[in-house]
Amino acid sequence: MNNFMLHTPTRILFGAGQIAHLASEIPSGSKVLITFGGGSVKKNGVMDLVYTALKGVDISEFGGIEPNPTYETLMKAVALVKAEKIDFLLAVGGGSVLDGTKFIAAAVFCNDDPWNILQTHGTTIKRALPMGSVLTLPATGSESNNGAVITRHATRDKQAFHSPHCQPVFAILDPVYTYTLPARQTANGVVDAFVHTIEQYLTYPVDAKVQDRFAEGLLQTLIEEGPKALKEPENYAVRANVMWSATLALNGLIGAGVPQDWATHMLGHELTAMHGLDHARTLAIVLPSLMNNKREQKHEKLLQYAFRVWNIASGDEDARITQAIAATRRFFEDMGVPTRMRDYQLDGSSIPALLAKLEEKGLTHLGEHQDITLEVSRKIYEDAR
Amino acid sequence: MNNFMLHTPTRILFGAGQIAHLASEIPSGSKVLITFGGGSVKKNGVMDLVYTALKGVDISEFGGIEPNPTYETLMKAVALVKAEKIDFLLAVGGGSVLDGTKFIAAAVFCNDDPWNILQTHGTTIKRALPMGSVLTLPATGSESNNGAVITRHATRDKQAFHSPHCQPVFAILDPVYTYTLPARQTANGVVDAFVHTIEQYLTYPVDAKVQDRFAEGLLQTLIEEGPKALKEPENYAVRANVMWSATLALNGLIGAGVPQDWATHMLGHELTAMHGLDHARTLAIVLPSLMNNKREQKHEKLLQYAFRVWNIASGDEDARITQAIAATRRFFEDMGVPTRMRDYQLDGSSIPALLAKLEEKGLTHLGEHQDITLEVSRKIYEDAR
Repeated sequence: MNNFMLHTPTRILFGAGQIAHLASEIPSGSKVLITFGGGSVKKNGVMDLVYTALKGVDISEFGGIEPNPTYETLMKAVALVKAEKIDFLLAVGGGSVLDGTKFIAAAVFCNDDPWNILQTHGTTIKRALPMGSVLTLPATGSESNNGAVITRHATRDKQAFHSPHCQPVFAILDPVYTYTLPARQTANGVVDAFVHTIEQYLTYPVDAKVQDRFAEGLLQTLIEEGPKALKEPENYAVRANVMWSATLALNGLIGAGVPQDWATHMLGHELTAMHGLDHARTLAIVLPSLMNNKREQKHEKLLQYAFRVWNIASGDEDARITQAIAATRRFFEDMGVPTRMRDYQLDGSSIPALLAKLEEKGLTHLGEHQDITLEVSRKIYEDAR
Repeated sequence: MNNFMLHTPTRILFGAGQIAHLASEIPSGSKVLITFGGGSVKKNGVMDLVYTALKGVDISEFGGIEPNPTYETLMKAVALVKAEKIDFLLAVGGGSVLDGTKFIAAAVFCNDDPWNILQTHGTTIKRALPMGSVLTLPATGSESNNGAVITRHATRDKQAFHSPHCQPVFAILDPVYTYTLPARQTANGVVDAFVHTIEQYLTYPVDAKVQDRFAEGLLQTLIEEGPKALKEPENYAVRANVMWSATLALNGLIGAGVPQDWATHMLGHELTAMHGLDHARTLAIVLPSLMNNKREQKHEKLLQYAFRVWNIASGDEDARITQAIAATRRFFEDMGVPTRMRDYQLDGSSIPALLAKLEEKGLTHLGEHQDITLEVSRKIYEDAR
């Protein structure tokens, strides 16, 4: 096991009706800005519940944070926060609203160009507004970690940052709020959480038995519950298991003390930035191809994954790995998430441009061994057509 | 899954050499009291490392906190804290030192009789000194939770309390510090962590798939690594896996949203208070007998436990449960922890007195169904002779 520092201070309030505790989680006398996305929270009643819970609190609103939240949109919120002297941010929505709100929280105190927050991956953040969330889409884990991914529309640039100052104070996770999610968002969330887990698990063994078993437990749960969430959208137990899995997939716990990959995310980000594909869909395209291309380097963990997660025990080692990769692809497809570029009307002609973007960002040595060079990335993209 | 609130704010610094970060975890200018136990930390070099890491810091010491820390001893530390105007407590040791230090932290601000902290189970705590720890014995999980168990020597009374004010700020977990543990303490720690996990797992199903799999992952890891820790005391990976399992067994994570039992602990506490047995040994005595006596109420989870943890798949349901209970007993015995009262020269003649103590404390309806009445407790004790 590698050395690690783990800090998971976000207070989790999980379960039906937990919004009743919302007011007591926000310092009294706060001027609160509620941030949200396309407005589904206004249609499905969640925003009404927030207002009821916060009766008497001074509230402003900022809506319209898009999937893959953009710098351009968020800077409007920064102006609003300054104008209205907001001192607490409440994100009501999914990972994009969360991520965008983290950026707002930090950018408010930024004296130079706030895009520098992304350029420096958050290391220059010295202060941020406190924030909490009412989560409506389990997927990114952003509700209890300190990372965010922001896109600059003007340059089609997608970058990540992390800062302990941007760790949400609390997260309200009510599985009932996810009943009305469109199937596509439910599926995307399950795939996203699954790949987050894989990025921290499917590398090479460092004898971290607990982390391995926790990761396998999340993968098994998502495999069992994901398809059920599509078929029985109002099954509370299923929604609860998916929601809790997604949070734990990226709160630092399973990644503590183990090597991490994240190349699937890096290659996927470029597909989103260039072609506007849903984040999770890019992961479903890249991951099976990456697994196959790195089957030698990931040999031991792929065998463990095949056996413990998919119960694949017969055939020679290579055949078992092939079966596990096929099972992964089938799981994504069963969730209604296609796994080939061609399924999204992409013929691969943009691959040189995708590689140029990776190179421009210095992403020329990715993965747990930093051996996913541009040449390997090309092969991964090409095999994913 | 049941509703839950989960807050795990203790910062974990895990791995060899993490003590190098100790000074930066303590507010500068603090007057620090180092609390410790019987003095093994002075012999094995850990205290020297603490002093080296805290060079220049104003330090006092309070040693002699015993296993099952007593009110009488701890009140001496409270007097010292007041006299020396201490403002940070650093526990260097295992769970008893941690628990005792939590009591000191709260009792310092107690205007009435500090034993009331125990009588009210911590609910009256409004404030406590900040504290951190350098852990030397993985077992209780006290390093990252807000609970403690204190014994009053004069009355042989053993009571628990919890308070968010007593949550340690940080914990340094260096597996190397556990290399020199006596085999008995290593074994006790493994059994303690194992039973902590069981108390939160072996109840009845509430479709909490992640919590179940995480608990099973901890149990499997302890079963695999526990005996190795006895045979290869300086195997870093083994010690690391045991240490991390013990912390995660009782930081709130696996118990979030699921029913909990804790009757084994309640019955065990009385054995310790009356006969001075090691805490873990009392658990090893009580648990197999409790499992057998509650096999009907715990039927489903016992079958799941048999299959997933022990790989027991053959025989009828009752036979599988019997095998799983036998495997549990064998595991404790293999760890060098006997599982019958007679192994500790107890013939059961104290059972009426043990039951009287339970009754005196109102512990007349224990377990996840509160159906472990005094009559059931009697049966559990009797079958454990």
